[in-house]
Amino acid sequence: MTTIDFTKGHGTHNDFVLVPDLDGALDLTAEQVRFLCDRRGGIGGDGAIRVVRAGKVADVSADVDPDLWFMDYRNADGSVAEMCGNGTRVFADYLRTHGLVTDETFDIATRGGLKRITTVPGGYAVDLGPWRLAREPEAQERGMDSVVQVVGIADPVPALSLDLGNPHTVVALPPELALGRIDLTTAPQVDPHPEQGTNVELVRPVGPGHIEMRVHERGVGETQSCGTGAAAAALATWWWAGRPDDQLDWVVDVPGGRLGVHISDDKVALSGPAVLVADGTVTLPA
Amino acid sequence: MTTIDFTKGHGTHNDFVLVPDLDGALDLTAEQVRFLCDRRGGIGGDGAIRVVRAGKVADVSADVDPDLWFMDYRNADGSVAEMCGNGTRVFADYLRTHGLVTDETFDIATRGGLKRITTVPGGYAVDLGPWRLAREPEAQERGMDSVVQVVGIADPVPALSLDLGNPHTVVALPPELALGRIDLTTAPQVDPHPEQGTNVELVRPVGPGHIEMRVHERGVGETQSCGTGAAAAALATWWWAGRPDDQLDWVVDVPGGRLGVHISDDKVALSGPAVLVADGTVTLPA
Repeated sequence: MTTIDFTKGHGTHNDFVLVPDLDGALDLTAEQVRFLCDRRGGIGGDGAIRVVRAGKVADVSADVDPDLWFMDYRNADGSVAEMCGNGTRVFADYLRTHGLVTDETFDIATRGGLKRITTVPGGYAVDLGPWRLAREPEAQERGMDSVVQVVGIADPVPALSLDLGNPHTVVALPPELALGRIDLTTAPQVDPHPEQGTNVELVRPVGPGHIEMRVHERGVGETQSCGTGAAAAALATWWWAGRPDDQLDWVVDVPGGRLGVHISDDKVALSGPAVLVADGTVTLPA
Repeated sequence: MTTIDFTKGHGTHNDFVLVPDLDGALDLTAEQVRFLCDRRGGIGGDGAIRVVRAGKVADVSADVDPDLWFMDYRNADGSVAEMCGNGTRVFADYLRTHGLVTDETFDIATRGGLKRITTVPGGYAVDLGPWRLAREPEAQERGMDSVVQVVGIADPVPALSLDLGNPHTVVALPPELALGRIDLTTAPQVDPHPEQGTNVELVRPVGPGHIEMRVHERGVGETQSCGTGAAAAALATWWWAGRPDDQLDWVVDVPGGRLGVHISDDKVALSGPAVLVADGTVTLPA
């Protein structure tokens, strides 16, 4: 029986169980992660984040500063993931609140590479790094490369696939459709079906530089928010608008709150709040 | 800003945020309860239970021993409730684990009156008190007093209404029907419609003295388990079987685990496991 400390936190209601492992001695199994994220049998979260020095983690490349803090992100189903946009802010707030980082701007290590964090009013901004359209150039010209079958909409809806370190398929819905009434209890079917799966964002325009979205996360289901999903949604909408130079800042309303997306060159940054809710101890299953 | 201790626990995956208030100084508002039970923005639970001496609570009658522990149960929506069958075991386990009670059999105070708790192998048994059929005697003779429309079953299914301090409508499904495939995302329609609403239990026989069930809780939706619902399901099945004297002990499988029901005279007792998962501190909203 191992008893560990934890902190529960959320960014726009995308919530996480943070597990400090300051000396790198903890090896969380997939089953233990599932337990931590189990909302009734455990603590509950969309994912778990181990807080550990980069130098203590085998899957960080040797040229990364070993003293950087590594965000060991796991999905609620126990699987390993590259990173999580909303999770970076909660991770950053954990580091700052616990005095592990004192700078206002700092780098964190993730399986998706180094991410630059900046303290901003009301939260944090994180440089999500480069993004790209995921499919062949011809499809990119048309602004769509796949179709998605959404429950309750008769015809498949055109969609654009983006790669932000993790895969996204963004679906533009007509403004007259009530986003809240769409059934996302099952995963929207993407055709052609991406081999590694994909997050699916359903997007509705609200006004200039302002969209709202709902998201079905790969391996999770619908969530209240997805940071890279918000960035993908803003990028796809910007792409469909003809990539206007004067529309690089976007407001993205998700069910769990409001996020900001800033597009610059081939990179994208995400900003929003982070909340640490509770601290405690929990005994892990063997 | 008030920072308080909490414990998260569950009984057959019906989960609760327990808040010790040993000196009776804490007044949890409905908003604070909603925060505690919020699965993403707070801790998360089907309900919250304040642990306080009966003598410190205004809504306990003056003839109750003021030193008894009172289970101040609140629904996740912040409303006050009489009690909760699965919650009594988790409450009892909290009292025993923290040394607040050392006896193996003891009374707890609830808004539904005193409840006798007995420590049993693997958990606790609680005397739920008297039960009765809710409708007129003629209908009781027939073993049904209403019909329920279940999504996916063409014809309305006969049902029996029971009162265990809260209202239940028990529906017997044929053994050949796969209980897991029934859609409970919306409330089954009960005819005649009970004015105060009702919990609805869908029951399938497994073997002698053994049933499985799913439950749609009034004002909540489908849950993993409902203690009084399990008792109602066993009582209705026993009634339909002709009230056999040699079949007073029932095993009830719910999605979240296994419960025991014991029928005696006009009373019913519920037994099952209790798990305390995590302890921590949380700062309440003002």
